[in-house]
Amino acid sequence: MVSGKAIEKTSGPIRLGMVGGGQGAFIGGVHRIAARLDGEFQLVAGALSSNPERARASGAELNLDPDRTYTSFDEMAERESQRPDGIEAVAIVTPNHMHFPAAKAFLEAGIHVICDKPLTSNLEDAKALAAIARKSGRIFVLTHNYTGYPMVRQARAMVEEGLLGTLRLVQAEYPQDWLSEPVEQTGSKQATWRVDPAQSGAGGATGDIGTHAFNLARFVTQLELDSLAADLDSFVEGRRLDDNANILLRFKPKGSEHQPKGMIWASQVAPGHENGLKLRVYGTKGGLEWVQADPNYLWFTALGQPKQLITRNGAGAGPVAARVSRVPGGHPEGYLEGFANIYAEAARAIRAARNGETLSADVLYPTVDDGVEGVAFVDACVRSSKADGAWTKLD
Amino acid sequence: MVSGKAIEKTSGPIRLGMVGGGQGAFIGGVHRIAARLDGEFQLVAGALSSNPERARASGAELNLDPDRTYTSFDEMAERESQRPDGIEAVAIVTPNHMHFPAAKAFLEAGIHVICDKPLTSNLEDAKALAAIARKSGRIFVLTHNYTGYPMVRQARAMVEEGLLGTLRLVQAEYPQDWLSEPVEQTGSKQATWRVDPAQSGAGGATGDIGTHAFNLARFVTQLELDSLAADLDSFVEGRRLDDNANILLRFKPKGSEHQPKGMIWASQVAPGHENGLKLRVYGTKGGLEWVQADPNYLWFTALGQPKQLITRNGAGAGPVAARVSRVPGGHPEGYLEGFANIYAEAARAIRAARNGETLSADVLYPTVDDGVEGVAFVDACVRSSKADGAWTKLD
Amino acid sequence: MVSGKAIEKTSGPIRLGMVGGGQGAFIGGVHRIAARLDGEFQLVAGALSSNPERARASGAELNLDPDRTYTSFDEMAERESQRPDGIEAVAIVTPNHMHFPAAKAFLEAGIHVICDKPLTSNLEDAKALAAIARKSGRIFVLTHNYTGYPMVRQARAMVEEGLLGTLRLVQAEYPQDWLSEPVEQTGSKQATWRVDPAQSGAGGATGDIGTHAFNLARFVTQLELDSLAADLDSFVEGRRLDDNANILLRFKPKGSEHQPKGMIWASQVAPGHENGLKLRVYGTKGGLEWVQADPNYLWFTALGQPKQLITRNGAGAGPVAARVSRVPGGHPEGYLEGFANIYAEAARAIRAARNGETLSADVLYPTVDDGVEGVAFVDACVRSSKADGAWTKLD
Amino acid sequence: MVSGKAIEKTSGPIRLGMVGGGQGAFIGGVHRIAARLDGEFQLVAGALSSNPERARASGAELNLDPDRTYTSFDEMAERESQRPDGIEAVAIVTPNHMHFPAAKAFLEAGIHVICDKPLTSNLEDAKALAAIARKSGRIFVLTHNYTGYPMVRQARAMVEEGLLGTLRLVQAEYPQDWLSEPVEQTGSKQATWRVDPAQSGAGGATGDIGTHAFNLARFVTQLELDSLAADLDSFVEGRRLDDNANILLRFKPKGSEHQPKGMIWASQVAPGHENGLKLRVYGTKGGLEWVQADPNYLWFTALGQPKQLITRNGAGAGPVAARVSRVPGGHPEGYLEGFANIYAEAARAIRAARNGETLSADVLYPTVDDGVEGVAFVDACVRSSKADGAWTKLD
Repeated sequence: MVSGKAIEKTSGPIRLGMVGGGQGAFIGGVHRIAARLDGEFQLVAGALSSNPERARASGAELNLDPDRTYTSFDEMAERESQRPDGIEAVAIVTPNHMHFPAAKAFLEAGIHVICDKPLTSNLEDAKALAAIARKSGRIFVLTHNYTGYPMVRQARAMVEEGLLGTLRLVQAEYPQDWLSEPVEQTGSKQATWRVDPAQSGAGGATGDIGTHAFNLARFVTQLELDSLAADLDSFVEGRRLDDNANILLRFKPKGSEHQPKGMIWASQVAPGHENGLKLRVYGTKGGLEWVQADPNYLWFTALGQPKQLITRNGAGAGPVAARVSRVPGGHPEGYLEGFANIYAEAARAIRAARNGETLSADVLYPTVDDGVEGVAFVDACVRSSKADGAWTKLD
Repeated sequence: MVSGKAIEKTSGPIRLGMVGGGQGAFIGGVHRIAARLDGEFQLVAGALSSNPERARASGAELNLDPDRTYTSFDEMAERESQRPDGIEAVAIVTPNHMHFPAAKAFLEAGIHVICDKPLTSNLEDAKALAAIARKSGRIFVLTHNYTGYPMVRQARAMVEEGLLGTLRLVQAEYPQDWLSEPVEQTGSKQATWRVDPAQSGAGGATGDIGTHAFNLARFVTQLELDSLAADLDSFVEGRRLDDNANILLRFKPKGSEHQPKGMIWASQVAPGHENGLKLRVYGTKGGLEWVQADPNYLWFTALGQPKQLITRNGAGAGPVAARVSRVPGGHPEGYLEGFANIYAEAARAIRAARNGETLSADVLYPTVDDGVEGVAFVDACVRSSKADGAWTKLD
Repeated sequence: MVSGKAIEKTSGPIRLGMVGGGQGAFIGGVHRIAARLDGEFQLVAGALSSNPERARASGAELNLDPDRTYTSFDEMAERESQRPDGIEAVAIVTPNHMHFPAAKAFLEAGIHVICDKPLTSNLEDAKALAAIARKSGRIFVLTHNYTGYPMVRQARAMVEEGLLGTLRLVQAEYPQDWLSEPVEQTGSKQATWRVDPAQSGAGGATGDIGTHAFNLARFVTQLELDSLAADLDSFVEGRRLDDNANILLRFKPKGSEHQPKGMIWASQVAPGHENGLKLRVYGTKGGLEWVQADPNYLWFTALGQPKQLITRNGAGAGPVAARVSRVPGGHPEGYLEGFANIYAEAARAIRAARNGETLSADVLYPTVDDGVEGVAFVDACVRSSKADGAWTKLD
Repeated sequence: MVSGKAIEKTSGPIRLGMVGGGQGAFIGGVHRIAARLDGEFQLVAGALSSNPERARASGAELNLDPDRTYTSFDEMAERESQRPDGIEAVAIVTPNHMHFPAAKAFLEAGIHVICDKPLTSNLEDAKALAAIARKSGRIFVLTHNYTGYPMVRQARAMVEEGLLGTLRLVQAEYPQDWLSEPVEQTGSKQATWRVDPAQSGAGGATGDIGTHAFNLARFVTQLELDSLAADLDSFVEGRRLDDNANILLRFKPKGSEHQPKGMIWASQVAPGHENGLKLRVYGTKGGLEWVQADPNYLWFTALGQPKQLITRNGAGAGPVAARVSRVPGGHPEGYLEGFANIYAEAARAIRAARNGETLSADVLYPTVDDGVEGVAFVDACVRSSKADGAWTKLD
């Protein structure tokens, strides 16, 4: 996470390019809405598909200038960096294994990067990319979008403020059911690459959603992981990556405090769960609970007091949540607004960089370092599981 | 409601103007996000405030061309209608009493209108505006935004399909708490005009939120109102418009069926409710329930079967809901997406008009006639309440 | 409601008789469990059915002495009052029209009465019974069992304490779905008498469940009714009593305050509702909500504060709720425990009478006067509905 | 679990004694209500406290014959077994370490035993007790009361019926918050013995509530445990037993199926949870969820279908649940009714034994063998945790 001071808008939207996200993709469309929602970005170029035909068709559908509809991200990085009106930032929304080469190309061309998670498909790439990003001096935003939800920000602020006391326990879970059957064998484009080690990396559910759960826990608690013990399974016959992960966590204690503990359950074979990301945190003085499917609510209990329902922009919620809210309490915001908050924070950072200004301290977005940690988390899960659940540290 | 066939996008976004919605306003910002979300509209002109200073500042903040930042909507209608790149549609987001003159000006200038609800501040204006709209041949969209929620569409489809059997009962409620105290006396801009008969019309809670509840019930059930009995109150001392409405409804039966009945409760003095719009409908074969604060869920019970939770883009939801959804089930959408769906429908209608095409039958948006009915509803509530709750028909 | 000081148990359980409640009945079994739960009563005699065969069989099943298994309540009243070990109290659980003669017989025989609701099948009987009860000096407990729930007691205490400020609004509803079809025509014993005016009285849903909703509202708010406007329907063809009631309420203001208003919805044709009794109360300072199906929870919002979840025997709940709870918070209590609380209060009153002691002020149970008011409520609903919803006072 | 055919009641309630449960105890009162609810048992003797004064006072409060108010369970076992009207069964509700000697004494005196859980404070005692019980031929019922809830029975039946397909995942949790602070140091009687290894055994939260979670998972799924990996903590300084347990589970696969996996979280230091027992089970065809605090609901999702809310005695629930329900759907039952179901099953077993009849196959109660397994579970958790979370089999 990175921070700085709030800045003025200047003359217009930030010029954005996109790699991946052509017809038939899911997350590319989400990134485009997120970029558009606050009017901060304008999509002007794209290498939307590795298939030239689909790249052109996708660009046309998005009203891109055909001259700026590329069939290779390398060409796009090179040519856009030479145009006076070239893109200032690029959104990378390909399968995982392409994040590294694409991000590298744009960073080295001096273009800011907004990259989908996980950062890369292996830890070596992740660390290399972090070094490249650091050297480039460019802004690198990883779209761990759940950290953009106002009530997740609120939760983090409440932990920081000490309302939970000393943290003891973290319970995170992310069950889904869409891979309960071998849909990758029956043509689901979304499934196919996610269960392919060559495209996804070593983690299946672990990488796709476990990293979200882990990142969310880290973001809210600011606890550092000491080690984990994992039991990974591929329940669906023939599946090559894990579709369920049962994980125990040990965090680093602060000073002489008792070591905080935790659990993560990530599953893609749990019928009844569409997208059940949930976080619960408990300390000596209180506990809180947040559920992604009902994101405008945060449940807080001060020990010995009645449970409270804190609502986005409602009573009990503070400025940290209000800052990233668009409508009053009772008017629900959702996934796209949370995703757009990551883009809005990216816009603030990019404008600050454009104007040579210091970034406001309340701007928060996941960085390349969060990305490295996420890939290290997947790597450690896989290693621990292979070692029959031995406690394992992140590399 | 109006319909037609789905059409192709053409060369770019629809050029949009806005009347009202300057700094300090709430609903103007919502309309702008809704217009922007799908990239279908581009805001290019505005008469954002009647205060010239605020009009200019608001325009600058929105990156409007100063030449197209007007201080009067009449001037804007005239000048924009003469520009080759003039606005094709205008969003009217002023207090209620200005809807009529503004809409009239733009319709007569040949510009499509997207107008906030209620249609006007009195029934005479409403009927006159409907005539003007009809005569103009222009598209008129009233932003009863709650009809844009996917699960509201789903509910309507299920009723239409007969899953509830013959309808018997409608329970609608819309409690809020933000006017529990006399905040209009302590400077709340939002409150001040809403409780002023000169700006709001004869209905307070009735007009501001009762019309939403009524419209939602009408939209989902397609039942026509026969008559109502209302008991309106202004609980806060000195308040000139109702802040609570208890209403009984009688709908017109179809054929020889028993007359369906209903209740509406609209309140702005009910502590604990932020924006509690809720609709329940019951028929001979089943019942359903939808709650605005949790809009991705629709509860359906077939008589004698377990209650079902139908989710947006999830199991049990059909193409009518999917058509106006942007992300998969479990990724919550909210108020802005629902609002944007009204704009998306408007865009389809405007593009069809632009291209001389027939509108797809699945395009649905509230029209000027829905607006007349809403104002007639408020008028009947006020008349019934003055007549000690006598059963009263809409004029 | 009646009160006094807490008393010591004495030498053993109170000897109880029962009228009605033979094989095939529902509420009789509930009364027996309620009587048994705290060990305060022992069932020793019964006139369980007007059918001699069923009366005997039912008595045998309950291990009653055959000598004390009667076929007529008159005989039972006479003979039990003459036995030295005769019953001290009788539970009357017949269809409504038998409440009056049965209660009269036992009161006049000097036996305390615990009677199911509604008090009688018509207002004349109700008033006569109240006079008889008063004259007899015997204790008369009406089983408006929902007032026995701990969180209902808690709600009443919070209103009394002023946590809601001046009351403005009451919203009560009691939807069910079990009479959605003409089950009385297909042999449902429960349905048959409930929809028969000769056995039930003039109110259908109004009498069966509307009285519960009204009583609950009265119990919690302690507001007195000024008048009501009702719209009653029999949706099922051929049904002779109402199966749906939409009702507006006006309460008596205290001093110069604005008159509190309310709504009651009672329905037996609302698919999806098993037993949906719900009460919401709003005042100048706060609001609360209680739902019978989830009775261990009370939702409270102080205006401008986060909503609180107060739990039975948990944080935020006070001694009034604890006094009628049996297990710690988080261990749910239900319908039978709430019902048993009415019996426990009755036991306290009967023991106090037995010992010539003053009853503790915290003992609360519905009395014959609450019963008269309930029957008057039904009567007023029927009269108002016949007068096309005219505002009507209780007789 | 044990079974047989349904039997007739005979001449009257079963004569019951109680060991433990004197003044100030919690669970003794629960057992007494459970025994009383259906009129199947009558408490006639007790060794209610090891303190003679409290034993006598407690007996008097319960109207026990002073001759049958004992100060030692050994004396009680001996003398009651010699009386012609002696107790037929005894309820043992002492701290854990006394279960063994008390149960042994009564079994050997030919008296049936109903014993609170965990079975004993160590595994050696547990196995010895199982042998004694077997040899005695007496009925031994362990009050894992949560298996008495109707919807838990329903869940088991649905799994058995194959509605979930092949089981893959089990998620059980049991968080509480009442030991978040060192209340054992400030006089809480409930806390003091529970955190004392001499009275509780080697498990704290593991033994007190983890065993419930494990037993519930076993009961519903009928899966056998292969091994577990546990991470136990005592978060409160100075506490000698675990107050939090994070546990991974591996079950035995059936045939060639993939091994089912699971997690258990048991905690007494999780603010915001009163008694949060929850079970979720997932298979190839569906998933279900049950929450103890809302026990009348069972959530079931058939893969690809909308989630269903199955209610006790409502639509979707079957005869297995109805058999142990007392009131219709929508009339909530709770903890005491669930507990009473264990007593009702015990009564059926005892009456069958009394009458020399075969027990109906639908009678289900936890046996001494379930108790041994529970103690072995605690033992394995402690061993695994000491071995740094190594996968460990039950001894």
